[in-house]
Amino acid sequence: MLQESTAVIRIPAKEMQECFTNILLKEGFTKEKAIQCATVFTNNSVDGVYTHGINRFPRFIEYIRKGYIHIDAEPTLINKLTSIEQWNGNLGPGILNATHATNKAMELANENGMGAVALSNTNHWMRGGTYGWQAAKAGYVFIGWTNTIANMPAWGANDARLGNNPLVIALPWKDEAIVLDMAMSQYSFGSMELSVIQNKKLSVQGGFDKDGKLTDDPAAILESRRPLPVGYWKGAGLALLLDLLATILSGGLSTHEISKREIEYGLSQVFIAFDISKLRNNSSISLIIENIINDYHHSIVTDGSKKIVYPGEKALETRKNNLENGIPVMKKIWDEILKL
Amino acid sequence: MLQESTAVIRIPAKEMQECFTNILLKEGFTKEKAIQCATVFTNNSVDGVYTHGINRFPRFIEYIRKGYIHIDAEPTLINKLTSIEQWNGNLGPGILNATHATNKAMELANENGMGAVALSNTNHWMRGGTYGWQAAKAGYVFIGWTNTIANMPAWGANDARLGNNPLVIALPWKDEAIVLDMAMSQYSFGSMELSVIQNKKLSVQGGFDKDGKLTDDPAAILESRRPLPVGYWKGAGLALLLDLLATILSGGLSTHEISKREIEYGLSQVFIAFDISKLRNNSSISLIIENIINDYHHSIVTDGSKKIVYPGEKALETRKNNLENGIPVMKKIWDEILKL
Repeated sequence: MLQESTAVIRIPAKEMQECFTNILLKEGFTKEKAIQCATVFTNNSVDGVYTHGINRFPRFIEYIRKGYIHIDAEPTLINKLTSIEQWNGNLGPGILNATHATNKAMELANENGMGAVALSNTNHWMRGGTYGWQAAKAGYVFIGWTNTIANMPAWGANDARLGNNPLVIALPWKDEAIVLDMAMSQYSFGSMELSVIQNKKLSVQGGFDKDGKLTDDPAAILESRRPLPVGYWKGAGLALLLDLLATILSGGLSTHEISKREIEYGLSQVFIAFDISKLRNNSSISLIIENIINDYHHSIVTDGSKKIVYPGEKALETRKNNLENGIPVMKKIWDEILKL
Repeated sequence: MLQESTAVIRIPAKEMQECFTNILLKEGFTKEKAIQCATVFTNNSVDGVYTHGINRFPRFIEYIRKGYIHIDAEPTLINKLTSIEQWNGNLGPGILNATHATNKAMELANENGMGAVALSNTNHWMRGGTYGWQAAKAGYVFIGWTNTIANMPAWGANDARLGNNPLVIALPWKDEAIVLDMAMSQYSFGSMELSVIQNKKLSVQGGFDKDGKLTDDPAAILESRRPLPVGYWKGAGLALLLDLLATILSGGLSTHEISKREIEYGLSQVFIAFDISKLRNNSSISLIIENIINDYHHSIVTDGSKKIVYPGEKALETRKNNLENGIPVMKKIWDEILKL
């Protein structure tokens, strides 16, 4: 039984992308938007972020069918200062809104050196790193974040009143990118669910059990709904500030308002891009990054079997492997998708 | 002996500020700059950040005398895009350079909605929160960070190649501010040193002992020089990205370059300000913050004796107490300062 539920098959990226596209077309997406969403869901899976790729796709369709995500909505500009624009996402698909906002932030950066888009009333952007890669591969430095529904208690609290509010920081490097994509909880619910299925403990304490004791047992944390903020009070504080800023800058909903809804929709996000091509030191930037990463890679490892990698480095390896061998998918999930 | 070394006296803020000013005048500061630096060192102490206030003042003087800090240096503009300016700090006092950069970022925000100053070749800004309070009390949203000398190993590494690179995020609220000021190590060396003096364990594991075991013993971590990044791999990744961005945007030195020097000087910093007065939702911002903080304060605490506070909230209480009763200072340190 366990074996069946954890059986893994390999699906070629092209097949996955076409499958997603067809489902989205059936849901009524335009061809362009269907391809755009299908590509992001596929690429997230190719890069190994299955929780916000293949594994999340059925829920995306569910939210469309329930009316939380409006597939025809287009974001609208509600305010423009020189380097900041405020946009209303009109509850469109989070991927499309976030891609649009990232493009606009880059346009503003072209004009002004840097630019920011604050986006209200949008939906889950899936993998935050997507927009970091998008901007960095186009040559920009990127900072972005989203708020979420309340899913993490403040440090010293029992009840979840903070979102885990992922923060993304990215920069271009060697035709690829260095991309940090971190939620403010030590582990995502998705990765803890995966650890339960795989019958694994977490590598470090990831939250509290129902008796309020710190634990590395993912099932106990899923039961208590008390994941641990990264760095205890520090990650909790950062999550609070990211929500405050996303809400203020976009004029959208905050975590506590989103949490009054039965389901997570209508999020607030911020996208900041820097055009580094006009910086005084532009010609040496590539070498600067090379030297920093080179020094970092020379760290003396405590466990000789492991390599010290920069954020985004592992994704490159996973990408290569998954493009060559197909994307590993739990058969149960693939069967579910084929029925959509 | 222990008693003597930990004896604490209370110094009125005004007396401390005058004492610092006089020492700085003797060192050759202009009156205006002496007062400015003395005020920041005093205010940091008033707010309870003794490690970057009173306790750090003797080292500030030492670095001036050794020539690492140039007291007459003025920052110079080296590049201006519409919303970004690159400045060279010319190794001036970090407090003066950072205050100047924060002012410039706010001016750019006035003109463009947001603005950023990237500052190279500067010195330790002491308490990062200083500039968060400065911008937020003037009505701006603020994001800023600095790199540091290498003082923290990457996750999975033995040797310190990352800075703990403090990040500051601030926003105005009720004539005061909400200010997050977090280094990427779970505890600063200053606070671990204080715990050793006070014979206290850390409240959570703060690093590794010399055998590579996680520990809450501050003395063991000071010996190993292996503090723990907040959230393990996550804080390490964030520290790396903050250094990369500070270095790229300012054109200054990175952590690994600073670390080749015998002492920490010549840092890179970033200051971003948002003018929220022209946002579409400006009139409701105060209420939005009120509602978010109100919800946060209603968290159910696990330990009834403790209150859930937002970043910066405790500083307000400490400030009130220290202004009324004087700033607690270790007598040993005050005696040292009086001899400067």
